[in-house]
Amino acid sequence: MSTPDWFSSSIMARRGVAAGKPGREHRITDAEQGKHHFVYGPYAEPVLTVAPGDVLVVDTEDAFSGAITSEQDKPSEKLNHPFLNPQNGPFHVEGAEKGDCLAVMIHSVETRGEWGTTALIPEFGGLVGTDATALLNKPLPEKVKRMRIDAAGVHFSDKIVLPYEPFIGTIGVSPEIEAISSLVPDYYGGNMDLPDVAPGAIIYLPVKHAGALLYVGDCHATQGDGELTGVAVEQRATVRLQVDLIKNWSFAWPRLENENVLMTIGSARPLEDAARIAYRELCRWMAAEYGFEELDAYMLLSQAGRIRLGNMVDPKYTMGASILKKYLTA
Amino acid sequence: MSTPDWFSSSIMARRGVAAGKPGREHRITDAEQGKHHFVYGPYAEPVLTVAPGDVLVVDTEDAFSGAITSEQDKPSEKLNHPFLNPQNGPFHVEGAEKGDCLAVMIHSVETRGEWGTTALIPEFGGLVGTDATALLNKPLPEKVKRMRIDAAGVHFSDKIVLPYEPFIGTIGVSPEIEAISSLVPDYYGGNMDLPDVAPGAIIYLPVKHAGALLYVGDCHATQGDGELTGVAVEQRATVRLQVDLIKNWSFAWPRLENENVLMTIGSARPLEDAARIAYRELCRWMAAEYGFEELDAYMLLSQAGRIRLGNMVDPKYTMGASILKKYLTA
Amino acid sequence: MSTPDWFSSSIMARRGVAAGKPGREHRITDAEQGKHHFVYGPYAEPVLTVAPGDVLVVDTEDAFSGAITSEQDKPSEKLNHPFLNPQNGPFHVEGAEKGDCLAVMIHSVETRGEWGTTALIPEFGGLVGTDATALLNKPLPEKVKRMRIDAAGVHFSDKIVLPYEPFIGTIGVSPEIEAISSLVPDYYGGNMDLPDVAPGAIIYLPVKHAGALLYVGDCHATQGDGELTGVAVEQRATVRLQVDLIKNWSFAWPRLENENVLMTIGSARPLEDAARIAYRELCRWMAAEYGFEELDAYMLLSQAGRIRLGNMVDPKYTMGASILKKYLTA
Amino acid sequence: MSTPDWFSSSIMARRGVAAGKPGREHRITDAEQGKHHFVYGPYAEPVLTVAPGDVLVVDTEDAFSGAITSEQDKPSEKLNHPFLNPQNGPFHVEGAEKGDCLAVMIHSVETRGEWGTTALIPEFGGLVGTDATALLNKPLPEKVKRMRIDAAGVHFSDKIVLPYEPFIGTIGVSPEIEAISSLVPDYYGGNMDLPDVAPGAIIYLPVKHAGALLYVGDCHATQGDGELTGVAVEQRATVRLQVDLIKNWSFAWPRLENENVLMTIGSARPLEDAARIAYRELCRWMAAEYGFEELDAYMLLSQAGRIRLGNMVDPKYTMGASILKKYLTA
Repeated sequence: MSTPDWFSSSIMARRGVAAGKPGREHRITDAEQGKHHFVYGPYAEPVLTVAPGDVLVVDTEDAFSGAITSEQDKPSEKLNHPFLNPQNGPFHVEGAEKGDCLAVMIHSVETRGEWGTTALIPEFGGLVGTDATALLNKPLPEKVKRMRIDAAGVHFSDKIVLPYEPFIGTIGVSPEIEAISSLVPDYYGGNMDLPDVAPGAIIYLPVKHAGALLYVGDCHATQGDGELTGVAVEQRATVRLQVDLIKNWSFAWPRLENENVLMTIGSARPLEDAARIAYRELCRWMAAEYGFEELDAYMLLSQAGRIRLGNMVDPKYTMGASILKKYLTA
Repeated sequence: MSTPDWFSSSIMARRGVAAGKPGREHRITDAEQGKHHFVYGPYAEPVLTVAPGDVLVVDTEDAFSGAITSEQDKPSEKLNHPFLNPQNGPFHVEGAEKGDCLAVMIHSVETRGEWGTTALIPEFGGLVGTDATALLNKPLPEKVKRMRIDAAGVHFSDKIVLPYEPFIGTIGVSPEIEAISSLVPDYYGGNMDLPDVAPGAIIYLPVKHAGALLYVGDCHATQGDGELTGVAVEQRATVRLQVDLIKNWSFAWPRLENENVLMTIGSARPLEDAARIAYRELCRWMAAEYGFEELDAYMLLSQAGRIRLGNMVDPKYTMGASILKKYLTA
Repeated sequence: MSTPDWFSSSIMARRGVAAGKPGREHRITDAEQGKHHFVYGPYAEPVLTVAPGDVLVVDTEDAFSGAITSEQDKPSEKLNHPFLNPQNGPFHVEGAEKGDCLAVMIHSVETRGEWGTTALIPEFGGLVGTDATALLNKPLPEKVKRMRIDAAGVHFSDKIVLPYEPFIGTIGVSPEIEAISSLVPDYYGGNMDLPDVAPGAIIYLPVKHAGALLYVGDCHATQGDGELTGVAVEQRATVRLQVDLIKNWSFAWPRLENENVLMTIGSARPLEDAARIAYRELCRWMAAEYGFEELDAYMLLSQAGRIRLGNMVDPKYTMGASILKKYLTA
Repeated sequence: MSTPDWFSSSIMARRGVAAGKPGREHRITDAEQGKHHFVYGPYAEPVLTVAPGDVLVVDTEDAFSGAITSEQDKPSEKLNHPFLNPQNGPFHVEGAEKGDCLAVMIHSVETRGEWGTTALIPEFGGLVGTDATALLNKPLPEKVKRMRIDAAGVHFSDKIVLPYEPFIGTIGVSPEIEAISSLVPDYYGGNMDLPDVAPGAIIYLPVKHAGALLYVGDCHATQGDGELTGVAVEQRATVRLQVDLIKNWSFAWPRLENENVLMTIGSARPLEDAARIAYRELCRWMAAEYGFEELDAYMLLSQAGRIRLGNMVDPKYTMGASILKKYLTA
């Protein structure tokens, strides 16, 4: 996928240090990555240092580190908590400092194999008791489904073929002093599982540590709202990203832009707090940069806001609140 | 709006007693209605008895009973709790018994005036402390906005014109022995504030009391996901509905069908429970009537389910989970 | 149990119309009650009209209407939703009007039989999936336990004898226009399942309807915090209550007083909202009547507040926040 | 405080490697500690290595690192997120491995100064909008209160003197690969703010990393249930702890024992999930080690369980569920 037409008018292109100019392209294969990471934090050595404007072409693992290879596999035997959801990186971005914004344009997410995997994992998912919604009911049976991915889409079954609508499940920067499991989404990004983090979108991440320390992994071939079982169509993929730096643009939670909308992303439990975070951030953004009184923004969102459920299964739930750009520039 | 093409293949047309054949048309003006109701319950006298297949053309009030007429009005002075969200009906449907389903096709929702109203009401809304999320922070200032509605749409401001996308905020049948405030959404319908309850959709409601006792009111000219301030573009409207009866079709929560999707609607707090209810009902529906193993339905929804946030402001929050019909009949 | 020593200094005695003077005593047996009620609302005929100061001696049913009589019974076969948790009353209190407070001194709760009953009911309880926390896990097995109640206490098993610490699970006044299931706790009281509503306590209820319309039922021989399975040691009991009226004392949620503490009671989901309601009401009470700045009350409660979990299983969860009286009158 | 009488019958004494025999005493002053830590994790160098049975006498800082010294201070100016809630340690315990239990007997918590501090911090606390319950209401004013601590107790005001009931707000072991803010309570302990973690209690922590890596800090002179404002009577204190190791005793969440009860501690949002975790762990403990059928334990807790609200303000809320020991050994 090439750069979309609207890119030149994006915040990334207008305000970034590289201002949309492509820099060097870096290829990160499995060999270059070496070992993957299972926390978002500042304690790992960067695998690479890049400049604003550079392009990263990264081979990612699936959320199971490829350990599930057959429908006869039992997730409880194959998965080794806390070593789940392997991440590439961290990528150190030159010049990034706390208080800046790291902008990441997602150019493409291409499958690396011809198979995607989904599963029922004991005590994990939206319609079962979990380690937090701790119940005495017996767990559901374990189950693995492998799906062929080809030009026609994702073959859920002989009869049901879903469109290939890939996105990045987990992406973010390092916290300042914490190292958080890559299963968690939070203010720095992480395991948001939000289908809008897709080719054609730019995600804006608040830098907390020198060099930003970008991590990425966990691509999905497609996913429903909420990632109901806790597992999407997990796939190994090659992602093509362009990073840029917007100096001194500081905000509390990840933001996203695509051709049509501005979006703010909140992660919390209970789910209404994720929605509140996302919508409050959007009010504040509209007030700070688009000339709205905060209460007018609030009233407009009550009529024209949209909200997408990313996940309702991770340690924090994720929602993305959005508004059509055309209403902001009217 | 006339009956849509796909109507003949709908559950209502296939399984209803009237099977899609239009019956008598009943016109309910303000005068015919007389006083409105503020609870969903079995203790009010039916305003009318209708037969399956009959069409109801009902003039509804806005959620404020028309008490807010100017941007200088203060909601706290004009509104008189618990006499909020006036409802038309109840309409007794001949032959309806506990265990049946009342099917309601929504033909049209036409504005009765040229103005819609929205407001900030103290301690009410998604981004403020409320009577339940009880905080010590001072309330936001009160505010009223009146918006012209015309062929161009809803004039939020000189520059922002939103499309007219009307729907019914509150519709449902009577509980068996309870009489619940019309501000509440629950298993019988009520104040769901879900934009999918719109012209072109059929809502299926579980009958709990003889005659079903249909109530309807609270039309919105448009609304964002979540109805963030607690108030949409509230309007007086004329709704055109066709009712039918599906005998011995019993389920736990409201269901909805339109051209493309089947939807199940859950209302609860916290918000994740609304999502769980909606998605579980959808799993069960797919298993009971579309040949899925329940766990396969669960896994399919994890890849292809969609969920819409109706409200995050009412006494219970509402979400509607859906799946494309084409995946069910594949 | 006779009137406790501290009663003369209670709010009820100081501010009530009857001011602690006992009036007539009314005996309500099963025969006098006739049919029980399953909603709190204004649509039932009062079973009796009493004056402030009068004493009510009421024979209550257990929450199952006595339908479970053996450990071989299956709750799912014996219980008939929504006809659960039968209530005595309503009792019309002369002179009570919206805006007043109904004060109810609980003198005693004496068991009417020598057996208490507890049970596991499918999809009901704190550690299982429910109709709201809607999951796909299989329900737990059903189970009934009958326990002898005698002078030694409640015989949970041969080895475990729990103290008899009886209280009233469900008590309250009628909403203004709603009729709410007796399974629900809310601003008017109802199914709070809070062990502090016990002999020696006075509960203060906000009158919403002329005559107050007091309902009472659902006595427990003892109960743990949260009523974890949803079922306590349910018993048929005789309760001895004295009612009084405090004119023009209006507040948002039930309040309680005993020898040592003032308590405010909140019911909501999620559970933190019940806690917020209870603690905010306590701040406001301390500010309105005990000379505290609201923020000082808030800071004092952070050091000296206590909170009790009533239930975590009913349609709303209940918590009671309290402060030692000695800190208020210091 | 010396070792309590019941200590010899405790799990720690019966099952620990040191079996209650006091080892060496280690004195950790501010100088020995050097810099404090603000995350619970495996990336910091141990300040000391100790043997099972050893006694640690540790000088702790208050949660503000002593930065608030006057009632005129503004928390928003003095506090420097994320450098909040400084922790002593980590202490490496010889022989501790993943799958073991670290037992910590709390002998005493003595104030190091004659002042305790509490405060209102913007967007932090149980009755205000926060970073997660994200609202548009204006924050409350900031406020600091300093309280003298002496033999009479904690002088909240001239008239209100609260008993000195000290406990450890934050204690725990390191996660395996994560480094989590010391503001967070979770499965490894951390910022539980539970008043039962007090002199006379033994806390049992699940070891996740070689050496256990014990951290401790954040002592409170007293605290109400829930720590309502988010701030207790914060004090610098000297804590006296004895550590022991129970090999191969693995469980999911912190456990606690004192003279009368066994307690399990859960931390989560929403609050009901904290309660569920705590009560499920208690069911499981009773079933695994005290001969109960799991469902009988569940039914007993419904009658005799107690639950204490630690905090309702931290990133996760904490509750401790308990049962009298006498019912377990009956």
